[in-house]
Amino acid sequence: MTANDLREIGVGMLGYAFMGKAHSNAFRKIAYMMWPPPLRPRLVAIAGRNEEAVAEAARRYGFDRWTTQWQELVADPEIGLVDNLGPNDLHAAPTIAAARAGKHVVCEKPLGRDADESYEIWRRVAATGVKHMCAFNYRFVPAVRLAREMIDAGELGELRHFRGRYLQDWGDTTERVWRFDRGAAGSGALGDLAAHVVDLARYLVGEIEAVGGFVRTFIPGREVDDAVEATVEFQNGAVGTIEATRLALGRRNAFQWEINGSNGSLFFDMERLNELQVFRADGDRARGFKSVLVTEPDHPFSEYWWPPGHILGWGDTFVHELHHILAAIAGDTDVAPHGATFEDGYRAAEVCDAVVRSSENGKREAVAYRMGPDTDEMRAELT
Amino acid sequence: MTANDLREIGVGMLGYAFMGKAHSNAFRKIAYMMWPPPLRPRLVAIAGRNEEAVAEAARRYGFDRWTTQWQELVADPEIGLVDNLGPNDLHAAPTIAAARAGKHVVCEKPLGRDADESYEIWRRVAATGVKHMCAFNYRFVPAVRLAREMIDAGELGELRHFRGRYLQDWGDTTERVWRFDRGAAGSGALGDLAAHVVDLARYLVGEIEAVGGFVRTFIPGREVDDAVEATVEFQNGAVGTIEATRLALGRRNAFQWEINGSNGSLFFDMERLNELQVFRADGDRARGFKSVLVTEPDHPFSEYWWPPGHILGWGDTFVHELHHILAAIAGDTDVAPHGATFEDGYRAAEVCDAVVRSSENGKREAVAYRMGPDTDEMRAELT
Amino acid sequence: MTANDLREIGVGMLGYAFMGKAHSNAFRKIAYMMWPPPLRPRLVAIAGRNEEAVAEAARRYGFDRWTTQWQELVADPEIGLVDNLGPNDLHAAPTIAAARAGKHVVCEKPLGRDADESYEIWRRVAATGVKHMCAFNYRFVPAVRLAREMIDAGELGELRHFRGRYLQDWGDTTERVWRFDRGAAGSGALGDLAAHVVDLARYLVGEIEAVGGFVRTFIPGREVDDAVEATVEFQNGAVGTIEATRLALGRRNAFQWEINGSNGSLFFDMERLNELQVFRADGDRARGFKSVLVTEPDHPFSEYWWPPGHILGWGDTFVHELHHILAAIAGDTDVAPHGATFEDGYRAAEVCDAVVRSSENGKREAVAYRMGPDTDEMRAELT
Amino acid sequence: MTANDLREIGVGMLGYAFMGKAHSNAFRKIAYMMWPPPLRPRLVAIAGRNEEAVAEAARRYGFDRWTTQWQELVADPEIGLVDNLGPNDLHAAPTIAAARAGKHVVCEKPLGRDADESYEIWRRVAATGVKHMCAFNYRFVPAVRLAREMIDAGELGELRHFRGRYLQDWGDTTERVWRFDRGAAGSGALGDLAAHVVDLARYLVGEIEAVGGFVRTFIPGREVDDAVEATVEFQNGAVGTIEATRLALGRRNAFQWEINGSNGSLFFDMERLNELQVFRADGDRARGFKSVLVTEPDHPFSEYWWPPGHILGWGDTFVHELHHILAAIAGDTDVAPHGATFEDGYRAAEVCDAVVRSSENGKREAVAYRMGPDTDEMRAELT
Repeated sequence: MTANDLREIGVGMLGYAFMGKAHSNAFRKIAYMMWPPPLRPRLVAIAGRNEEAVAEAARRYGFDRWTTQWQELVADPEIGLVDNLGPNDLHAAPTIAAARAGKHVVCEKPLGRDADESYEIWRRVAATGVKHMCAFNYRFVPAVRLAREMIDAGELGELRHFRGRYLQDWGDTTERVWRFDRGAAGSGALGDLAAHVVDLARYLVGEIEAVGGFVRTFIPGREVDDAVEATVEFQNGAVGTIEATRLALGRRNAFQWEINGSNGSLFFDMERLNELQVFRADGDRARGFKSVLVTEPDHPFSEYWWPPGHILGWGDTFVHELHHILAAIAGDTDVAPHGATFEDGYRAAEVCDAVVRSSENGKREAVAYRMGPDTDEMRAELT
Repeated sequence: MTANDLREIGVGMLGYAFMGKAHSNAFRKIAYMMWPPPLRPRLVAIAGRNEEAVAEAARRYGFDRWTTQWQELVADPEIGLVDNLGPNDLHAAPTIAAARAGKHVVCEKPLGRDADESYEIWRRVAATGVKHMCAFNYRFVPAVRLAREMIDAGELGELRHFRGRYLQDWGDTTERVWRFDRGAAGSGALGDLAAHVVDLARYLVGEIEAVGGFVRTFIPGREVDDAVEATVEFQNGAVGTIEATRLALGRRNAFQWEINGSNGSLFFDMERLNELQVFRADGDRARGFKSVLVTEPDHPFSEYWWPPGHILGWGDTFVHELHHILAAIAGDTDVAPHGATFEDGYRAAEVCDAVVRSSENGKREAVAYRMGPDTDEMRAELT
Repeated sequence: MTANDLREIGVGMLGYAFMGKAHSNAFRKIAYMMWPPPLRPRLVAIAGRNEEAVAEAARRYGFDRWTTQWQELVADPEIGLVDNLGPNDLHAAPTIAAARAGKHVVCEKPLGRDADESYEIWRRVAATGVKHMCAFNYRFVPAVRLAREMIDAGELGELRHFRGRYLQDWGDTTERVWRFDRGAAGSGALGDLAAHVVDLARYLVGEIEAVGGFVRTFIPGREVDDAVEATVEFQNGAVGTIEATRLALGRRNAFQWEINGSNGSLFFDMERLNELQVFRADGDRARGFKSVLVTEPDHPFSEYWWPPGHILGWGDTFVHELHHILAAIAGDTDVAPHGATFEDGYRAAEVCDAVVRSSENGKREAVAYRMGPDTDEMRAELT
Repeated sequence: MTANDLREIGVGMLGYAFMGKAHSNAFRKIAYMMWPPPLRPRLVAIAGRNEEAVAEAARRYGFDRWTTQWQELVADPEIGLVDNLGPNDLHAAPTIAAARAGKHVVCEKPLGRDADESYEIWRRVAATGVKHMCAFNYRFVPAVRLAREMIDAGELGELRHFRGRYLQDWGDTTERVWRFDRGAAGSGALGDLAAHVVDLARYLVGEIEAVGGFVRTFIPGREVDDAVEATVEFQNGAVGTIEATRLALGRRNAFQWEINGSNGSLFFDMERLNELQVFRADGDRARGFKSVLVTEPDHPFSEYWWPPGHILGWGDTFVHELHHILAAIAGDTDVAPHGATFEDGYRAAEVCDAVVRSSENGKREAVAYRMGPDTDEMRAELT
C-alpha cells in the first residue's frame, strides 16, 4: 500500500483548547501509529470564538484554515467529520447541523446539558444516518477494554458490585471558567465527571435501572455542583455507588472503579491507567489482586504501540477513540458497542438527570430511557 | 512498683470463639505490654453454651473457671468487668444484667440487633453508672487514632467527603453460621460491617444527619443482607458514601475509607492497617499522598510496642481497646471520645436502621437520635 | 487435654530490652495461641546487668526470679532452655556454658561477632547434643515460609536472581548505643542487617558460593560500618546482590528481597510483612505480580491466628519461632530446615566475613565453610 | 508567529523499527506539542537495509524519501540532523561520517559496543563541533528531571546510596534477534540495560569511581550476557549497586532506582514513569514516602502536555529528548547537562567495560576516563 492509496477524510474541529489539543494530536498520530489507517484524516478547518487563538491553533496543529463561525464547518464540502469539542452549550446546534449536512459527528461529553437536550441531539442526528460518537474516551483505555473483554467472556461470573468514583481537586478556586457557568456547562461535577462514571458503569456492568443520591455545592456562589453522591442499581441485579467530586485534595484525575463478580474482581485507577488490578477465584494458594500492566502483545491496542512494559499516556487513548470512528466510517460498521454512540450519551444524561431529581425529591429514582427515532422521523429529518 | 502493687480487676467473658480469642489475648498482653497496666486483668470466668468448648477455652486462655450459664458471670463477686462477645441476640440481657449488678461492661458491636434494642441496652446500662464500651475496635488502630488527632488539630481543614466501605468476600457460601441467622444476628453486612463504617465515620468526621440507600441480599435463601449501599450526609456538611459487602472477591478485610478536607486528605485500608495515606495541601512541589507507617515514636500507641517500622497486627488493636476501658475504670475517666460508648453503639444502630427504612421506602432518611436516661431513670434503675 | 497435662519447660532469658520484650511476649502467647503447645514455657529467670531494670523486667513479664549473673541461668536446674538475647559479645560464653550444662539454647543473631567466634559457638554447642537455634526470626514470617514452600515445590523453576536489601535509617545519630561499639557488636549494618539478608538468601535460594563488595562507614568517628554493598553468587548458579544500610532515610525496617526463577518471581518487603508479591509465568492473559495477603487458611501459621485478611504483626513472628524450638525439643526433631541452627548462624558469619575480606582486598571472595564437630569432639565435650 | 516563520531542520534517520517509530513519532509531535518549536523538524529521509520495510516506513511516518544506503543521509544537503537508531555495530561509521559532513547527530545508546569504540565516536564527532547527543532517553522522563532538580537544589543533602536495577524478562527465548548477536550488539543486558542505569547514576548522583561485579549468561548458547550484578562507588562517596537482567519474570520494563541522601530519599520505577516516590526528613509527624504524580504545572515538561493528573506515556519522553537537541541546535546551547552528550555515552561505556574487567579478573575496578579531543585534533578533523 502506498500513502496515496489511503482514502482521506476531512476533519472539521470546533474548539481549540485542552480537548482540541488532545484530538488534534490524536488525528495526527492515527495516520502512522495505526498503520495503515482506515482513513487518513486531513485537518481541514478549526472553529473557535477567539480569532487570534483559533488562528494560532490552526497553524500549530496544521489545519488548512480556521474560522470563528462554526457554520462554516457545516457548510464545508471538504469536511466529512465534524468533531465538536466546544463547551456544553455549543454541543447541540453545531452537531445537529453537521449531521443534517451529512457529516459524521463526534461530540464531547456530556452530549447535552441535560437528558432533554441530549435526547434531542441523539434523535435528530440518528435520524440522518451519519455515524455518531459521544467522546467518552475512557472506553478506549486499554485496561478498560481488557476489563470489558474479560467481563464479556464471563471471567467475572455474575456481576454484583460496581463502585465508581471520579475524584479531582481543582474545584476549590476562585478562577472563573466556563465549567462553573450553569448556562454553558449545564452542571458541574455531574456532567463533567459523574457522566464518565455512568458511561463506564453502563459499558462494563450493564444498563442502570435506578439511582438515589444528590448533588452538592460547597463553594459559596458557585452555580454548579461540586460533588455527586449516589447509589446505583443495575438491571442485572448488580448494585453499587457512583461518586464524583472536584474537591478531593490529592486526587488529580482519580477515576477509580471496582467491579466484583461471583468469579473475580477488577479494580482500576485512571492515575495508573496502564494497570488493571485483577482478582480471580481460581483456587491458587497464592491468591490476591494481580497488578496487570496492560501492555502485553495480547492486550487491547498494544499492537499499535511499544513493546511490553512501555506504558501509554492519557493522550494516547484519544488515538484509539478517533481511530474507532474512522474505522466505523470507512467500513460502515457500528460505533457500538465499544464506542459510545449518541444514544449512550443520551442514556448517561438520563442517569445524571435522575440523580438530580433524587437530589431534589429525596427519593430513589428509576431511570426510564426514551426510544430512538423511528423510520418516519428519519425520513422527515432527511427531507 | 512491684507486681503486687497492681490492683486487679476480675474479668468475666461471654463467648470463646474468634472474639474470645482476640480479647483473651489482649487482656493477657495488657499486663506487660502496657506496663504498668492501670489495672491487672485477672481472667476469672468464661461462659459459653458448649460445655466442652468453653472448658477447653478456660484451660487455653487461663480463666479460673467456666460456666454454661452467663448468669454466673453476673453473680460472681470476683468479676468487675463483663466482656460480652456473644452473638448479637445475647448482647442485651447479659450486658444489662451485668451493669445492674454493678459490673463494668464491654459489649461487641453491633450493640443490639436494631436501634430499639441498642437504645434499650444503652439506656439501662447508662442508668447504672458503670463504665460501658461498645467494642468498635477499629478506633484503636494507630492509623485511625492518628487520623482523628490530625482532624482534631484542624490539619484537614473543613471536611467535605467521607467514602467508607468495608469489603469482605466470604459470603458466597452454603455454610451455616449464626451471622446468616436473622434472629441471632439481626442483620447481615449491615450490622457486621457497615456498623463499623458508620462508627468510624462518626468518630472521624462527625455526627450523621441523613442517609439514603438500601440493603441487598444476593444469595438465594439467605435471611440477612449481603450488601449495603448508602449515601451519607453529616451535620457539618460533609457528604459521601457508606458501603459494606460480604461479596467482594479478593477483599478479605478491606475496610477502606477516605476523607477529603479543604487542607488535605486521608486514605486508609485495614488490610494495610499500619499505613495511613496522607495528602497535605502544603504547596510542596513534590506533592502527593504520603504512605505513613504509623509506628513512629510520636505516633499513637507506639510507646507500648516496637521500634519504628516494626508493624502491629490486627490482634494488637484489641490490646489498646481493652487497655482503654481498664484505664477508664481505674481513673474513673470517660470512655468517650476515643472509646465508643454504648451511646455510640446506639447511634450507629440508628444510622443502620435509617438505611433499612430508606431501603424499604426509597427515601433519603434523616437520622434522629434519642436522648439518654435522665436522673429519674437512673435513680429508678438503681433501686 | 487439661492444662495440667501439658509438660512445662523452664526458660532462662539473658537480656531484657527490645528483644527481651519480643521473646517474653512470644513465650507467653505460645501457651494459648498455639494450643495445645508442645511444651508450656515457664518463665523461670531473667538475667541482665542493670539490677533495677532486670528486676522490673521480671515483674513485668512474669519471670519467677531475676539475676545480674547469667551464670545463675546456667546453673538453674529448673531451666531447660536458655534464650540468649544479650549484645553480641555476650553470645559465646553464656550460650556455650548453657549447652554444656545440658540446656537447649536459642541465641540472637549474629551468632558470633565473626566467623571464628560463630564457628566456636556452633562447634562447642553442637558437640553437646542440645537443640540450638540462631534467632533469625524472619524465617518465621508467614510470607517467607510460603515463599520457601513455593520454591521447594518447584513453582519458581530454576532460580536465577536474588536481590536482597535490608534498609533502615536510624544510623545518622550521635546517640551512643552498643550497636556502634565494635567490641560489643563486632560489626555494624553487616552483622545486624546484612546477616539477615544472607540468612534468607540461604534459606530461600541456596548456599552462597562467593561474594564481592565492601562495607562503608559514613558517620565520622563511628567504629562500625553503616552500610554493606555486595554481589553474590550461589552454588546453584543464581546471582544477585546483598545490601544493608542504616542510612536509607524513609526506610524504617525495609527488608526487601526479590527472587526470579525460570517460572516465576517473588517480591517481599518486611514493612508489609503480610504480603508476598507473586508472579507466575502461567500464560494468563491477565498477568502481573499478585499481592498475596498471607493470611489464608492454607497459608503457613494461619491456623494459629485470625480469619483471612486479619494481618499479623512483627511481634507475632517470634511466636512462630519460639514455638518451633519448643516443638523440636518436645518431639526431638530437627531445628533445620525451617529454623536456623547454629550451623546456619555460623555460615551466615562466613559470608559476612567474606564481604569484609573483599572490602579489604578488592577481590571477589569464595566462601568456604568449615565442618561441624565430629564424634570424638562430641564425646570430649560431654565429658 | 506564523507557521512559515519557523525555521526547519531536515532530519535523516537510520533505522525504522522500534526506535524508528519512537523517534519519528517524537519529531512529528514536537512541531505542535512544544509550540512554537525551536526548529520545525522535516522528515527528509530514512535509511534501512530492507528495501520494502524502509519504503513502507517512509510512507508511514512521512519521510520525503528512503534509501538502503546510509551514506545518502550523510550526503544529503537537506539533512541537518542525522538520528542514528541502527544496531550497535552501525553506530560508529554513520555517526562519525554525518558529523564530519557537518550534520548534528543523535546516536542510540550504547554509543559504541565498548569503551574504545565509544571513545572513538565521541572523539571524532566532538572534533567537528556539531551538536551530539547519545539517546539516553530516560533523562527526559519528567520524574527523572524532577529528581535531578531536587538533587541539584540540595534537597536530598549529602548523597549516600544509589541502588539501580533495570529488569526485563524477555530473555528466556530461542528467538534470534540482533541483541543476542555479539558482533552486532557488543554485549547483552550490559549495554542494553545496565548502560541506562549507569547513565542515570551519573546524571543523578555523580561520577562513578569504581565498580565490582560480573556479567552472567544463563541461556545456553547465548553469545551475550543475560545479567549484570555490580557494586558501585561514586566520586562523592556514595555507594550502591547496579544491576540489569533480561530474566526477571514479571518485570517488563522495570528500571527502578533509589537514592538516599542525608535529608531525604527518592525511589522510581519506569513501569510507573509518572510517579516519583519522595521522602523528606522534614520532621512532619506524618512522614513517609510521597507518591508524586509528576504532572503538576510546576513539574518538568508539564507545560507542553495536559492538565495535572493526566499521565504521559513512555513514547512521550522522546518528544522531550528530541526537542532538547533541536533547542540546542537552534540556540547553539550545550546539550549537557540534561542531555547526554557523546562524552556521557563514552563514560557509560567505560563503566560497563570496568564491570567486564571485574567479571574477568575478580577485582574491584577503578574507572578511568579519557580526555576529549584537544584543539589540534579538532583542527585536524575539520580539514
